[in-house]
Amino acid sequence: MPHSHDPLVIAGREYRSRLLVGTGKYKDLQETRAAIEASGAEIVTVAIRRTNLGQNPDEPNLLDVISPERYTILPNTAGCYSAEDAVRTCRLARELGGWELVKLEVIGDPKTLFPDMVETFKAAEVLIKDGFQVMVYATDDPVACKHFEEMGCVAVMPLAAPIGSGLGIRNPYNLKLILEQARVPILVDAGVGTASDVAIALELGCDGVLLNTAIAAARDPVLMARAMRLGVEAGRAAFLAGRMPKKLYATASSPLDGTFF
Amino acid sequence: MPHSHDPLVIAGREYRSRLLVGTGKYKDLQETRAAIEASGAEIVTVAIRRTNLGQNPDEPNLLDVISPERYTILPNTAGCYSAEDAVRTCRLARELGGWELVKLEVIGDPKTLFPDMVETFKAAEVLIKDGFQVMVYATDDPVACKHFEEMGCVAVMPLAAPIGSGLGIRNPYNLKLILEQARVPILVDAGVGTASDVAIALELGCDGVLLNTAIAAARDPVLMARAMRLGVEAGRAAFLAGRMPKKLYATASSPLDGTFF
Amino acid sequence: MPHSHDPLVIAGREYRSRLLVGTGKYKDLQETRAAIEASGAEIVTVAIRRTNLGQNPDEPNLLDVISPERYTILPNTAGCYSAEDAVRTCRLARELGGWELVKLEVIGDPKTLFPDMVETFKAAEVLIKDGFQVMVYATDDPVACKHFEEMGCVAVMPLAAPIGSGLGIRNPYNLKLILEQARVPILVDAGVGTASDVAIALELGCDGVLLNTAIAAARDPVLMARAMRLGVEAGRAAFLAGRMPKKLYATASSPLDGTFF
Amino acid sequence: MPHSHDPLVIAGREYRSRLLVGTGKYKDLQETRAAIEASGAEIVTVAIRRTNLGQNPDEPNLLDVISPERYTILPNTAGCYSAEDAVRTCRLARELGGWELVKLEVIGDPKTLFPDMVETFKAAEVLIKDGFQVMVYATDDPVACKHFEEMGCVAVMPLAAPIGSGLGIRNPYNLKLILEQARVPILVDAGVGTASDVAIALELGCDGVLLNTAIAAARDPVLMARAMRLGVEAGRAAFLAGRMPKKLYATASSPLDGTFF
Repeated sequence: MPHSHDPLVIAGREYRSRLLVGTGKYKDLQETRAAIEASGAEIVTVAIRRTNLGQNPDEPNLLDVISPERYTILPNTAGCYSAEDAVRTCRLARELGGWELVKLEVIGDPKTLFPDMVETFKAAEVLIKDGFQVMVYATDDPVACKHFEEMGCVAVMPLAAPIGSGLGIRNPYNLKLILEQARVPILVDAGVGTASDVAIALELGCDGVLLNTAIAAARDPVLMARAMRLGVEAGRAAFLAGRMPKKLYATASSPLDGTFF
Repeated sequence: MPHSHDPLVIAGREYRSRLLVGTGKYKDLQETRAAIEASGAEIVTVAIRRTNLGQNPDEPNLLDVISPERYTILPNTAGCYSAEDAVRTCRLARELGGWELVKLEVIGDPKTLFPDMVETFKAAEVLIKDGFQVMVYATDDPVACKHFEEMGCVAVMPLAAPIGSGLGIRNPYNLKLILEQARVPILVDAGVGTASDVAIALELGCDGVLLNTAIAAARDPVLMARAMRLGVEAGRAAFLAGRMPKKLYATASSPLDGTFF
Repeated sequence: MPHSHDPLVIAGREYRSRLLVGTGKYKDLQETRAAIEASGAEIVTVAIRRTNLGQNPDEPNLLDVISPERYTILPNTAGCYSAEDAVRTCRLARELGGWELVKLEVIGDPKTLFPDMVETFKAAEVLIKDGFQVMVYATDDPVACKHFEEMGCVAVMPLAAPIGSGLGIRNPYNLKLILEQARVPILVDAGVGTASDVAIALELGCDGVLLNTAIAAARDPVLMARAMRLGVEAGRAAFLAGRMPKKLYATASSPLDGTFF
Repeated sequence: MPHSHDPLVIAGREYRSRLLVGTGKYKDLQETRAAIEASGAEIVTVAIRRTNLGQNPDEPNLLDVISPERYTILPNTAGCYSAEDAVRTCRLARELGGWELVKLEVIGDPKTLFPDMVETFKAAEVLIKDGFQVMVYATDDPVACKHFEEMGCVAVMPLAAPIGSGLGIRNPYNLKLILEQARVPILVDAGVGTASDVAIALELGCDGVLLNTAIAAARDPVLMARAMRLGVEAGRAAFLAGRMPKKLYATASSPLDGTFF
């Protein structure tokens, strides 16, 4: 099959799965492990400030269930509200586990959890100079996303909708603009709610999706993890297969020209 | 896994796959076979008026590549513009292959290929009396769909959008209304364009999807067939897993109440 | 101004306003009158079975506030669940006030208030033979709408969404198909929720909009009536003015071809 | 009527109209004048770098048709790609006409004309210190919009869609988030295509809309200007009137909870 080798490449490393997952909001570590396994993810993002990766020897260690030998651990800066905090958190991660591939997020608003783009730019600059490989959480702003790429971020991750909202891709037009000019992987990060949302992201041409709540807050997280895995595979296959054009009806002489909806 | 046995049941028979496919518009029978195989479909619908199932011994016979032993052949009445024509076509199918499970469509308009509901009601009535098991192509009208169920149709198949349009599900609200009151399988028939469309149909609670052009008119039909298979599986798993509620943002105290969008 | 004379013509009579309104659900007749006046409507539809037009001399008579000299009274068959009932109700209206222009609705489902199309066809046939001028409430089914026109209905009124739902136009594609082939006025009836909904209907090319709940159930019905009047005028003017094409961005060489959204 | 006095207040000054218009892309100054008059706008934005306001005494002067006595002239920095350029342009405007109320836009991409938010922040800071009253063109990013307000901008103007695209409001959710926390006027700037788009913006609670291409590129710009005026009035009235809740159908016991669409 021509598409059997279709890896996601981030910072020079190949991944078979295009689904990246978080570890928050699960009932217990057992469920965390089962859901992540069902998702097929190879990259697992971990909130350094909220997760015990060995800092506290008396509590359960996430790495006991999400083995760094099996998964690429992606430390993230969730909970940081300034460039300074985010940079400090990434350095802590490097000390703790030697991780240099990080997910940068600098939150600008505790309610919507939208990023603060100015602080994110500052942090990205420092981190890249400091040798980190930065995957950056951003608004779906084509100019900002291009800037992050030009600064040297290894992946840019625009939000689909507010973190934890489950609203799905609110503005596919912006994603389209971002994708048209991107030369690094573009991953949708945040806002996804169900399997068709991730399929749509991949069909638009996104390189992958990062999510957490949509799995952890489903009634059956393990089954939803499997749904997400299938959704990513479905969307990627559809993207590669090249969908039929949209028409108002089959015998219309031209594709829908978008003049009405 | 609790959901390993989750069959689609039509007219008392169980199917593992929730994707039904047609056989039209392929390059050749070879491609037809490969695409259908990749789709995982177990039910294959065939336009009796346009397809050689042995009527013409000098031309390639579809049944040589789509074996009735492996697939459930579902004769359909594509091209029929009156109840009379549709009934005659079904009877021809029964004579030809003994088929009693049929897909009824009575077209009302050669341009949009929308059904003529009045003629479809007439045909359904005759066919059911005559012992056929009728799966019926309909508009997405909750009242009409309920009537078809009450008449004894074994499945009701509202359109998502015009046949061959690839527009996807244009009116999920109507599907929701249809599904709320249905006691027979509801399958989306017509208008699907890509994998996320089928995922959405299944997430809404539809029992399955029937499609043809979306696979046959893709750039790579076999790969799109696989995408559709994955899309159906993704959507079904997400439906069973129970998605998270939608909120305007994660910390919103209540789910989105729909007062704006 | 070239568009100063742009009347809505129904059954040979010209109207300046393209907004038709109902009389239900108001606090009292005073509010009914004020809202209808603010709406600018010239055609007011009245549920014969629920409204006192003089049948009961001891109760307030709607015609005292909605004068037949000023408004075209359009009796409707709300609450009828069969062709027989609807026909009887129209005949009652003719006896009561001499009205021959009627709005036919035959409800198929007390929950969604969707029409029963089979019964509606039957009633339309009888009423047209009987000399009535029939404006018909229908699903947004292009084939059915065309049939109503061919039978001799003077206007066809597809629903935008379920009566009283306020959901707005759920399927502009179907309206587009209906409008492409229509030779009688097409009015959106039911489901409108706010002023932009009516603007959209007119921009699509609909000849008018009929609504009731969207005004009566607003917090300030009289102000909402004014909003609806402005929305109709805005949408009609935009339709006649010919909107700019949609593009992904200003300098895109071609209009949006609809291949993604 | 309770809403007869409902002014838009910007920088302490009251305006009756909530529609702001540009002057670009018209056939000639005659059409510019007629369209702007039909729009009812009281604030007219002018691209200082592209428009003759007297710099060139040998060419037609825009101010001869758009009189500063009748209209508030709002100089804008269209065509500026850096904070420095934008600041210089505003200072030029002040020298030229004494204008201190300015529309700041710093473009980040000549294709999409999206703003460069980092440069826009820099320019806003300098301009505010320098005594300008800044209305700022921004992405629909709630965090950035709040920052502009906190810096002292007198109005924040998030884009609905790319400038000149005519796509309408692509992300009402972001506007909702921006509006929830705003204390200065929020005006939609850019991307509007037709009258219903402006009605939607006002219904969401936006304080006004700024547009240009949607009028100038319509087939009949003067009529479209009138449509836009009506659309703004319709949307504002509907917002103040308080729309009915959305339900799946009239008799549903609760408003739509957004769990499906």
